[in-house]
Amino acid sequence: MNKIKKIAVLTSGGDAPGMNAAIRAVVRAGIYYDLEITGVLRGYEGLIHADFIEMDRKSVANIIQRGGTILKTARSDDFRTIGGRAKAHEQLVAAGIDALVVIGGDGTFTGANLFATEHNFPVIGLPGTIDNDLAGTDFTIGYDTAINTVINAVDKIRDTAESHDRLFIVEVMGRDSGLIALRSGIGVGAEAILIPEANMGIAGLVTRLEMGRKDKASKIIIVAEGDEIGGGFNVSEALKERFPQYDIRVSVLGHIQRGGKPSCMDRVLASRLGVAAVEGLLEGRSGEMVGQINRKVVFTPFDHAIKHIDAEEITPAWLKLVEILSL
Amino acid sequence: MNKIKKIAVLTSGGDAPGMNAAIRAVVRAGIYYDLEITGVLRGYEGLIHADFIEMDRKSVANIIQRGGTILKTARSDDFRTIGGRAKAHEQLVAAGIDALVVIGGDGTFTGANLFATEHNFPVIGLPGTIDNDLAGTDFTIGYDTAINTVINAVDKIRDTAESHDRLFIVEVMGRDSGLIALRSGIGVGAEAILIPEANMGIAGLVTRLEMGRKDKASKIIIVAEGDEIGGGFNVSEALKERFPQYDIRVSVLGHIQRGGKPSCMDRVLASRLGVAAVEGLLEGRSGEMVGQINRKVVFTPFDHAIKHIDAEEITPAWLKLVEILSL
Amino acid sequence: MNKIKKIAVLTSGGDAPGMNAAIRAVVRAGIYYDLEITGVLRGYEGLIHADFIEMDRKSVANIIQRGGTILKTARSDDFRTIGGRAKAHEQLVAAGIDALVVIGGDGTFTGANLFATEHNFPVIGLPGTIDNDLAGTDFTIGYDTAINTVINAVDKIRDTAESHDRLFIVEVMGRDSGLIALRSGIGVGAEAILIPEANMGIAGLVTRLEMGRKDKASKIIIVAEGDEIGGGFNVSEALKERFPQYDIRVSVLGHIQRGGKPSCMDRVLASRLGVAAVEGLLEGRSGEMVGQINRKVVFTPFDHAIKHIDAEEITPAWLKLVEILSL
Amino acid sequence: MNKIKKIAVLTSGGDAPGMNAAIRAVVRAGIYYDLEITGVLRGYEGLIHADFIEMDRKSVANIIQRGGTILKTARSDDFRTIGGRAKAHEQLVAAGIDALVVIGGDGTFTGANLFATEHNFPVIGLPGTIDNDLAGTDFTIGYDTAINTVINAVDKIRDTAESHDRLFIVEVMGRDSGLIALRSGIGVGAEAILIPEANMGIAGLVTRLEMGRKDKASKIIIVAEGDEIGGGFNVSEALKERFPQYDIRVSVLGHIQRGGKPSCMDRVLASRLGVAAVEGLLEGRSGEMVGQINRKVVFTPFDHAIKHIDAEEITPAWLKLVEILSL
Repeated sequence: MNKIKKIAVLTSGGDAPGMNAAIRAVVRAGIYYDLEITGVLRGYEGLIHADFIEMDRKSVANIIQRGGTILKTARSDDFRTIGGRAKAHEQLVAAGIDALVVIGGDGTFTGANLFATEHNFPVIGLPGTIDNDLAGTDFTIGYDTAINTVINAVDKIRDTAESHDRLFIVEVMGRDSGLIALRSGIGVGAEAILIPEANMGIAGLVTRLEMGRKDKASKIIIVAEGDEIGGGFNVSEALKERFPQYDIRVSVLGHIQRGGKPSCMDRVLASRLGVAAVEGLLEGRSGEMVGQINRKVVFTPFDHAIKHIDAEEITPAWLKLVEILSL
Repeated sequence: MNKIKKIAVLTSGGDAPGMNAAIRAVVRAGIYYDLEITGVLRGYEGLIHADFIEMDRKSVANIIQRGGTILKTARSDDFRTIGGRAKAHEQLVAAGIDALVVIGGDGTFTGANLFATEHNFPVIGLPGTIDNDLAGTDFTIGYDTAINTVINAVDKIRDTAESHDRLFIVEVMGRDSGLIALRSGIGVGAEAILIPEANMGIAGLVTRLEMGRKDKASKIIIVAEGDEIGGGFNVSEALKERFPQYDIRVSVLGHIQRGGKPSCMDRVLASRLGVAAVEGLLEGRSGEMVGQINRKVVFTPFDHAIKHIDAEEITPAWLKLVEILSL
Repeated sequence: MNKIKKIAVLTSGGDAPGMNAAIRAVVRAGIYYDLEITGVLRGYEGLIHADFIEMDRKSVANIIQRGGTILKTARSDDFRTIGGRAKAHEQLVAAGIDALVVIGGDGTFTGANLFATEHNFPVIGLPGTIDNDLAGTDFTIGYDTAINTVINAVDKIRDTAESHDRLFIVEVMGRDSGLIALRSGIGVGAEAILIPEANMGIAGLVTRLEMGRKDKASKIIIVAEGDEIGGGFNVSEALKERFPQYDIRVSVLGHIQRGGKPSCMDRVLASRLGVAAVEGLLEGRSGEMVGQINRKVVFTPFDHAIKHIDAEEITPAWLKLVEILSL
Repeated sequence: MNKIKKIAVLTSGGDAPGMNAAIRAVVRAGIYYDLEITGVLRGYEGLIHADFIEMDRKSVANIIQRGGTILKTARSDDFRTIGGRAKAHEQLVAAGIDALVVIGGDGTFTGANLFATEHNFPVIGLPGTIDNDLAGTDFTIGYDTAINTVINAVDKIRDTAESHDRLFIVEVMGRDSGLIALRSGIGVGAEAILIPEANMGIAGLVTRLEMGRKDKASKIIIVAEGDEIGGGFNVSEALKERFPQYDIRVSVLGHIQRGGKPSCMDRVLASRLGVAAVEGLLEGRSGEMVGQINRKVVFTPFDHAIKHIDAEEITPAWLKLVEILSL
């Protein structure tokens, strides 16, 4: 393998708070190790169209605290084709780029994996997604910020919840995974948490709500958008008949959860992994995601990282914890 | 009129940030003027049932920064009846209470007006509602906090809005009034603001969106829940066909807007008006709301305060401002 | 007077949250009225060195929520000289610029006033300063955000203040004016507020603290940096001997108060005044600051605006309010 | 050992965000396992004076999001004596209490250790301190909130830092440990971080600042209060001569760092450990702190927990990371 002299970095998929901190770390590590750094705009789509910008220290000044991604992201149907990836490879070679850092989630890594294999091109991935649904890292970049965004919103509902017989339903993100709902539900002290992994169903929810304190002024239910009962408004409909005494109110947080200034944990994680990604490439690594497990930097092959069989937290022990706390 | 020696205070209607600051100011002013102060729990309902607590300096320590209301609120069907109000009067007299401060919105003042008249009992009202829909005050207590809550939420969407062709719809409170939508819409730099007072309609909205910059990555639309097109999801449905190129996402903020720590403006306003309410009672006033106009304390009869024909801001001049800014 | 076709905008002096919202409004209003808009970097210094950038809709996209100023500010000793101002005028003429909008405080307006007079050049000013120390406007752009920053910081001290016999001293900005201290002190429910305008002195402060509730766990004192006793640490020294039973802790907020996302009020104020500034220039106005009084747009000559004899709030009535509330 | 039927819980030492979440979890777990729960007011001092309150579900409703501690804390000189601890034991026995949960830091655990040994009384500790200076847990309850408080404050300085040649010095907590400074310094992208563990000295700091980008508008330095050079103002004095071109500004965050609503991570950690503490007592454990390492619940003897030789993060690897990122 030739010595790496020039690295490109891109963000892809749904954006996540901390992506800018990760970009900054990749650029600064590149400079530290005397590399040239190219930013790719709009993810794989920009790779195919050579949407490149040179990056120096100044390009990443004052971005560590910003939500979103200065490199923007986009979907790329082209990159899903062999031809698209071949075109992307041509563009990288033409620009003298020797290696690639991709920041994103499972879709991003699936593409990166194919690309790295087909073109024998060094690629390292950083886990950038609010969903925390990747193996090979305790937390993904953006998850901690997202759950803090949720609890800060729901805390405001708590303020108004003491006064009435009310049932507040808050729908949070998580089409396939209840990890945001679970942690934020514990964080806000929710009376019930509905997640795809634990099929409580309406009957179970009703039981749970009936079990609760009779004298409790009001109750908060966190619903993952992917829960089988459907989103917050569907749950509301289902409960209306059973609990006519409650005034039921629904909030749908939506994309608010993707934004905001990254939390300190997300910034530190992104900073550390961004540096480690560059160091990994320089050590000859490729086809891997760099994550953090037990406070240590760990590399995991892409095809393993995207099989999130982990879900460490959605276990009977955690569900029992929820039950105890929401008494 | 007899000298006032004991005052009761209650909160009623939907709660609003700053109600606690108002309660605190009433209590402290009462102590300053050597009065006894009674807190009434759960609004008019608590009045009827003599749900009273004695209040001293300590009762209101450390609450100025809290959302919600330590006195709680509730609906009272009973108080809408002559009999209910008579019962409430009996309870006040039995407890030796000479005057009443009520904190709430137009429903609260309607009841207070009847009560004050029927029983010739001194009552002063404080404008506590996030809707800003009362005459006799530039701003109601809670409005400033609510619009800050909205812009802080929508700012997070801005972070993620640079990357995609997206249309974000955010539904805010305001069943009868677009005042929250208007100010917060200007505050977030929304591309369009839908309010009940200005019948833009879907056709108008489509025109507005088409007029906008073609190269703009994404657009944010603020919708008052009371807009004629209906809530955020209805607007989304209506736009889907016309703008197939956009990925449309909806957030419904709901009761998040009622909570949160009050802003400095709301705390200072509540503090000032709470003191003024007590001083007003001592001066022999009754049947009036105390508000602030042009930075001066002003008293307005209840029946005028609830006729909010004011809506100073929803004028052609403000709508033109929105148009200029959202270019 | 010739028709205005091209306008320049600059920010000068200490930066204030909302300056970006003001710049955005000037640019958008300029476009709305078919003007060309030039941004001047680094205030008057950039004017002298023709540090100009053309601005379009896109230049001001996504900045309404940002603290600081995208046009940066700097001190300019040169602009205090006749020669410096002459050079600035040459640069404006050379660039075909017909009028100028300056955003800043009293120093900014003093310079603007000389410049407008000496060169008969149209200049309108916007009040951009956290100090709220200008006549001709109820509030300056940035003040509302600054006092909210203070209360959010001090609220955190409240959380920890219930437990110990502690005296917390918080130093806030205000070299010549206690307006930040006064409002934020009311907002946090401070036990004492030390401001330059009310010479309480250490003896007065001691009396005040001794008067307070004996059973109160801890006390918070807000000190304006310009108070005669000196900053927070000086007050701490002075109190140590008198109150050996207290554990005294000092926080100095410093420049934290200049930053942060602008509040909704500051954004709306900046947006409205930015548009009004452009409209004022088009109507032939010059040498004036545009402000908002009683919710109406008002123009005030520079030499009057900088004479802040107003200080409406630091009156016996407000000081009595502080006394009542801090019982 | 007899079966445990009644448990007491107290908070001691400097308060930390998340203590209320921990209390809530202890109470709810107690109820879940059919125990009686007693709250002790004001830490060990309250233990000695039998300052007890019975706790039920309602006692801990709506507190998970609150900073501070509803049980208050205090110093107790008495508890440092054998006699004081004997008195405390008498009070517990008299009240029929079988076991004790203490929430605090190393001072708290030192006392707990002596008490448990001397009286063969079951005691479990929870790590509640913002300093993160305990062995036996990856993070202490309150640390994550504190570093987020720091970065949110310093971000505001970043907003204003683009405009001038300025040097901002921010003093953060950490008398014996630079852990808050290190993580928050990485989080804000500080140009230099001064911590007790790495004796950079003024000379080193000067070198570091001179090494940096010449074109950088301004620099932010994070100083742990315990750094050898002294607090922020001392560092300021020392730098003034060397960098006359800079305008140096100091912020001292102080007790702001102890307060605020706990972060989601702190709430979840506190909730989990609170339940685990009760379960540990029921399993017959005593004389141990319950912590979380690698996402697993772990028990560590008090005398080991207080020997914080861990400081995993202040290693050459982390200091190199700081260097790379602050280029």
